[in-house]
Amino acid sequence: MMKLGAFLPAPGHHVAAWRHPNARPDGGLDFDYYRSIVQTAERGRFDMVFLSDGAGVRTHYKDADELSRQGRMVHFEPLTLLSALAVHTTHIGLTATASTTYNEPFHIARKFASLDFLSGGRAGWNVVTSVTDVEAQNFNLDKQPDHAARYHRSREFMDVVTGLWDSWEDDAFLYNKESGRFFDPAKLHILHHKGEHFSVRGPLNVPRPPQGHPVIVQAGSSPDGQDFAAQWAEVVFTAQQTLEQAQTYYRGMKQQIAGHGRNPDDVKILPGAFIVVGRTRAEAEDKYDTLQSLVDPVVGLGLLTGQLGNVDISGYPLDGPLPELPATEGSTSKQQLIYQQAKRQGLTIRELYLKVSAGRGHRFLLGTPETIADELEEWFVNEGADGFNILPDYLPDGLDAIVDLLVPELQRRGLMRTEYEGRTLRENLGLPRPSFTTTPVEP
Amino acid sequence: MMKLGAFLPAPGHHVAAWRHPNARPDGGLDFDYYRSIVQTAERGRFDMVFLSDGAGVRTHYKDADELSRQGRMVHFEPLTLLSALAVHTTHIGLTATASTTYNEPFHIARKFASLDFLSGGRAGWNVVTSVTDVEAQNFNLDKQPDHAARYHRSREFMDVVTGLWDSWEDDAFLYNKESGRFFDPAKLHILHHKGEHFSVRGPLNVPRPPQGHPVIVQAGSSPDGQDFAAQWAEVVFTAQQTLEQAQTYYRGMKQQIAGHGRNPDDVKILPGAFIVVGRTRAEAEDKYDTLQSLVDPVVGLGLLTGQLGNVDISGYPLDGPLPELPATEGSTSKQQLIYQQAKRQGLTIRELYLKVSAGRGHRFLLGTPETIADELEEWFVNEGADGFNILPDYLPDGLDAIVDLLVPELQRRGLMRTEYEGRTLRENLGLPRPSFTTTPVEP
Repeated sequence: MMKLGAFLPAPGHHVAAWRHPNARPDGGLDFDYYRSIVQTAERGRFDMVFLSDGAGVRTHYKDADELSRQGRMVHFEPLTLLSALAVHTTHIGLTATASTTYNEPFHIARKFASLDFLSGGRAGWNVVTSVTDVEAQNFNLDKQPDHAARYHRSREFMDVVTGLWDSWEDDAFLYNKESGRFFDPAKLHILHHKGEHFSVRGPLNVPRPPQGHPVIVQAGSSPDGQDFAAQWAEVVFTAQQTLEQAQTYYRGMKQQIAGHGRNPDDVKILPGAFIVVGRTRAEAEDKYDTLQSLVDPVVGLGLLTGQLGNVDISGYPLDGPLPELPATEGSTSKQQLIYQQAKRQGLTIRELYLKVSAGRGHRFLLGTPETIADELEEWFVNEGADGFNILPDYLPDGLDAIVDLLVPELQRRGLMRTEYEGRTLRENLGLPRPSFTTTPVEP
Repeated sequence: MMKLGAFLPAPGHHVAAWRHPNARPDGGLDFDYYRSIVQTAERGRFDMVFLSDGAGVRTHYKDADELSRQGRMVHFEPLTLLSALAVHTTHIGLTATASTTYNEPFHIARKFASLDFLSGGRAGWNVVTSVTDVEAQNFNLDKQPDHAARYHRSREFMDVVTGLWDSWEDDAFLYNKESGRFFDPAKLHILHHKGEHFSVRGPLNVPRPPQGHPVIVQAGSSPDGQDFAAQWAEVVFTAQQTLEQAQTYYRGMKQQIAGHGRNPDDVKILPGAFIVVGRTRAEAEDKYDTLQSLVDPVVGLGLLTGQLGNVDISGYPLDGPLPELPATEGSTSKQQLIYQQAKRQGLTIRELYLKVSAGRGHRFLLGTPETIADELEEWFVNEGADGFNILPDYLPDGLDAIVDLLVPELQRRGLMRTEYEGRTLRENLGLPRPSFTTTPVEP
């Protein structure tokens, strides 16, 4: 079965989503709106909702005018939102992004364990490092730590968090009113972590989570990121444009996973798929044209600049080609993907920003349920993907169309479940429950 | 009107609460249990539920045997729990404890703002500093920072958090689809805080909360704590044993509030009240005797030791008096309260630990709805309290009895609301909404 994530920022992934007549630009702070959308994803039998995050507003636009035209700068904090959604859903997984760069592992271990209890075992943690100076400046720094330092901290962070989740054995709590014994002292394990970045004694003040550990999600692109994902991730979110690229990434990642002594089947690789689906191709094209017509040129150019790592391209003609790019610290693989796409397709800057506005660097699929199912199936059966993280164009209509049109087609082909197999995210993804380990990994 | 908080740790405040036949010792991790309890408090028209917190398990007991007999060491993390409760309640305030010692102000500002949106303006933040080495050891330290250092950081923390809440003016977001203007750039204010402990640029990626700022709660006992409360708190939680003590504290705090240029009516002082109520006094005494009979001597002595700042009293006879206490860093005022109580009432160590087991240092009220209402009214009308933070003995029965027996008596006397006046915690407490300030306070 395909594993499907629903990547659901309000009001949708298209940069002009908020300007669509049916969109709710204030949806990012309206719980009823989010509840309705996530219940739609659950009706569509998605494995999980996925929320990205950053600890800051990207205010480094050219000017206040450009900034004030961005549509997604304020929204619920993901862990509080998913906690509320946990008690209005029953089966769908709830994956929040949290950074290892400006958090403490004790807090992160505890909050995700708490979410796992609130949801009955449906929590997922998308592990990221923070890559912007804007975030660094909200946490006592001027600039982001460099790539290697971020990953070094992140690896030790994982040792601590997973160690804290194993503070108590699964059956540690006796609750024995007669004997007065609340827990079995032989089943408490104190971490005593002492490392380069962290000194954390433990134990966690939450029992071992229902899933053992919440599901670990990661988006590894750089070599460090891929190695990190191979060691820790159980779901890998990635951006791939062609089947060949996807296959190369898929095979490489599965090899690296095996290289870490893990079973490659225990890690699900989900490329992103930005989807515009209509009953006919003409209907899908109409939907897309409406959104593209709403892209503010100021915003489109700004988005492209951001995707290119804030390389200044404002001096180049909009109807000319993208210039050669200098190498920069950060998400360099994403920049290369965009640059290659522009060269391959001969796009001008304007054409490129309209393209990037739509897919945000992810695979872009427009068509009928049949053609999109064909495209997803092609990657799924040819070792390009274990499933997909689905990016709806705008909400709620885009997700409604996916659930009402595309999901039934996938179900008809036997590619997607019609009922949830289990009650936990782990069960539905087909991932093993981590065994309890009393020996924390030394950093 | 009396302002009432419901201080609701599962499975209740009495140290033997979890051993009561009707108690749910695993309730601290059962959402349905918490939902039911908090809905009871809402039915009783309480202003707010109040959740205490600490970032660690107090494992420094004499031995594993003593540790394993404690009943409240694992539970939901409060912000995730209150986020879930927010969407299953409609009027009751939701106050979570979070420490300024091991958190970052950006995260705290953001999570409480998010909770305020999820709840439609019902978030409260109980500001504490962390006072145990156990917590320090979960955050890269060996020992807790000293009292003065904690408060110094805490004051700057408040400057940053309140400044971040004022990142956006109340009407900053336009959501204008036609013009493409998401917000009015003149209504964005970037904090640019540079202080001794924090350097935080801002803005927050959440709009100004529905309440302007979530309600600030604090429990100021030490001189530093009282001054902090006088400057920042809107609700003060305190432990007072006699009307005279309560009046002294009340008048002193109101003076200090005025000394900070604030209106003393804008701060509500709520002493704790541990309540055991029955239809008759005999019924209340029976309930209490049942609980006291369940106190494990190992736990009772350990609790008293903890309340005395971990002073070792294990060498003294249980049926003899409490020895003179050395001065220690930390919550010294609490220790003095307990010591004075023991001397005043001529209690042995055993009698004292049974007493402390019940009230946990707070005023202890046992009786009928009429006698307890008399006792609460006496403090309320004589400038001892603006209301009370109510500590039920065990859950759910203790809270049920308070809501079904005591609350109607308070309502009959016109001391308590029969319907909520407003929809936000601030409206129900009768607190003004903070005006927007563009000038952050310099640290």
